[in-house]
Amino acid sequence: MRRPQVVPDASLPTSVTVYEVGPRDGLQNEDAVVPAAVKVELVRRLLDAGLPVVEATSLVHPRWVPQLADAEEVLGLLVDGLGDRARDLPVLVPNARGLDRALDLGLRHVAVFASATETFARRNLNTGLDEQWAMFEPVVSRALDAGMRVRGYVSMCFGDPWEGAVPLPQVVTAVRRLVDLGVWEVSLGDTIGVGTPGHVVRLLDSLNVAGVPDSVLALHAHDTYGQALANVLAALRHGVSTFDASAGGLGGCPYAESATGNLATEDLVWMLDGLGIATGVSLEPLVATSVWLGERLGKPSPSRVVRALSGVSV
Amino acid sequence: MRRPQVVPDASLPTSVTVYEVGPRDGLQNEDAVVPAAVKVELVRRLLDAGLPVVEATSLVHPRWVPQLADAEEVLGLLVDGLGDRARDLPVLVPNARGLDRALDLGLRHVAVFASATETFARRNLNTGLDEQWAMFEPVVSRALDAGMRVRGYVSMCFGDPWEGAVPLPQVVTAVRRLVDLGVWEVSLGDTIGVGTPGHVVRLLDSLNVAGVPDSVLALHAHDTYGQALANVLAALRHGVSTFDASAGGLGGCPYAESATGNLATEDLVWMLDGLGIATGVSLEPLVATSVWLGERLGKPSPSRVVRALSGVSV
Repeated sequence: MRRPQVVPDASLPTSVTVYEVGPRDGLQNEDAVVPAAVKVELVRRLLDAGLPVVEATSLVHPRWVPQLADAEEVLGLLVDGLGDRARDLPVLVPNARGLDRALDLGLRHVAVFASATETFARRNLNTGLDEQWAMFEPVVSRALDAGMRVRGYVSMCFGDPWEGAVPLPQVVTAVRRLVDLGVWEVSLGDTIGVGTPGHVVRLLDSLNVAGVPDSVLALHAHDTYGQALANVLAALRHGVSTFDASAGGLGGCPYAESATGNLATEDLVWMLDGLGIATGVSLEPLVATSVWLGERLGKPSPSRVVRALSGVSV
Repeated sequence: MRRPQVVPDASLPTSVTVYEVGPRDGLQNEDAVVPAAVKVELVRRLLDAGLPVVEATSLVHPRWVPQLADAEEVLGLLVDGLGDRARDLPVLVPNARGLDRALDLGLRHVAVFASATETFARRNLNTGLDEQWAMFEPVVSRALDAGMRVRGYVSMCFGDPWEGAVPLPQVVTAVRRLVDLGVWEVSLGDTIGVGTPGHVVRLLDSLNVAGVPDSVLALHAHDTYGQALANVLAALRHGVSTFDASAGGLGGCPYAESATGNLATEDLVWMLDGLGIATGVSLEPLVATSVWLGERLGKPSPSRVVRALSGVSV
C-alpha cells in the first residue's frame, strides 16, 4: 500500500488525537439506514484500526434522526462485544431526555451540541440561543455530577448558511459558555466548510485572548470546499492537537447536494503520518473499513485516500 | 454564490500567481478527445476569468498524446481570436522537434518537462537522466537565444510510483540544472500526490541552501491523497508565490484509477480568496467554465468547490 514519506516539521505537535465521528455525525447525515449490527461492526473496526476515540451514536429523538433510532440497541450490542469499556465511547445527548437515557445506560462520556448562531439554534434545536443555554446548563451540570466526561460542540463557527458571516465574538461567547459550564473540550465546527486558514488562526487567537487555550479545543473541519486539511494544518501550527474526522468522509453535507461534508479520517491520517505525528491509527485497516462500509451503503467513499488506495493494488 | 469570509494571515504573501495548466496538463490526461474549438473556448474563458497564465497545449508528438494532436490548429485559432498576445501563452515543448514547431509558430513562452527520477525519465521521455539533460541543454539554450521565456517542470519531486521515495538531493540536482540552463521558473511537481507539508518545507529549505530561492519556484501539487491545499499552504508560508492548478481539477491521475490528479484551480482560489491574497481570478466565471467543460467531457468536475457551488444555487 502506497504511503507518504515521513518528513516531520519541528514547529508542529508530535502527537494528535483523532476524534472519530463517523458512526454518529457521519451516519446521521447519510440517506441509508444502516442495521445496528453494521454500526457495531463499524465501531469495532474503527477501534481495531487504532482510533483512540469513536463517537458511537446519538441519543436523539428517533423522529429527528431516524438513522440513529437504534441507539440503545447499538450501545447494548457494543457493551456485549466490548464489555464495560464501551461505556467510555462518547455519545451525543441533545437534551435532558437524551442525558436521562445516557444515565440509564451507565455511559461515562457524552457530548452536547450547541450553535453559535441564532438561526441554526432555531433550525436544529428548535430554540433560540438564550433557551439553548438555559437547556444545556442543567444537562451539563447533571452529567458532571454523575461523573461523566462532557464534550461540547459549537456549530457554524466559520459561517452559517442563513446568516452568512458569523462574527468572531459570537463564537467566542459560545465557546466560553461551554467552558464555563465545565466541559473538558470544545469542538469548533466549520459546519458548512467555508472556513480558510487565516480565519482558523484568527478564531484561535480570539479564543486564547478570552482565556480558552488551544489545549481544550478541537477542530471539526468540513471538506465541502476542499479546505479541511489546510485548516487542520493552520490549527496544528497554532497549537491545537485534537481533530474530528469521519471514516471515509461519511456524512454528506445536507446543505449542498453532491457536496462532501466531514473531513475523511484517512486524508487526515495521511497528512499526519507524512508529518511524523503520532496518532496510533493504522491507515490500512481504516481504508479497508471504509471500503467495506461503502459496499454496505451502496456508494463509494468520497475520501481521496480511500479512492486512491482502493483503486490501486492494496 | 457562497464565498469564504476574508481573513488575511499577515505571515503569507499578499499576492499569488495562479499558473493554469488545465488545457495542457488537464486535457492530456483525460480520456475524451476534445475538439479544437472547445479547447480554444476553454482558454478564452479561463483568461476572461482572470487567470494570468494559461498553458495552452503541448507540441508533443501526436502519437504520444493524441488528446493534444491538434496543437497547431488550437494555437492558430487562439492567434485568430486573441491576436498576437496568444503567442505569450506558455506551451510545453518536450524536445528539439517541439521547439522547432514553437519557433515556426512565433511563440514566446515555452516549458520543458524534466524528471527527477531515472525510471520516470525512461517511461516518459524514453531516455535516462543523463540523456534527458543532454537533450534539454540545446533546447533551452536555443529557446533563450530566440528571446523566449522558458519554464522548467520537474516531475516526481515527492515520490515516484516505481522508485518509491525520492531522495531530496536528487530533486535539488534536477532543479539546479534547470536554473543553471537559464529557465526563469521551476515548477516542483508532486506528480503522484504523495507529498505532505513537512516534505514540502524540507525540499524548499534544501533548494534555498543550494542557492535556489523561493521566488523562482512554483509548486505543482496533485490532490490524489487530498494533500494539495495543505501543501500549498506550507509552501506559501515558506515564501513560494506561484502555484499550478487545473480548472475543475481536470486531468485524472493515470496511476490510480478513480483517483484525482491536479489540484483544482477553484479549490486553490477559494483558499486564497479567504486569505485575502490577490490573484486576479474571479471564482464565479471559473466555476461556470468547469461546469460547461464537464458537460462537454460527459463527467462532472472532481473539484469540491465546483461540486458545492454548482449543487446550490449559483
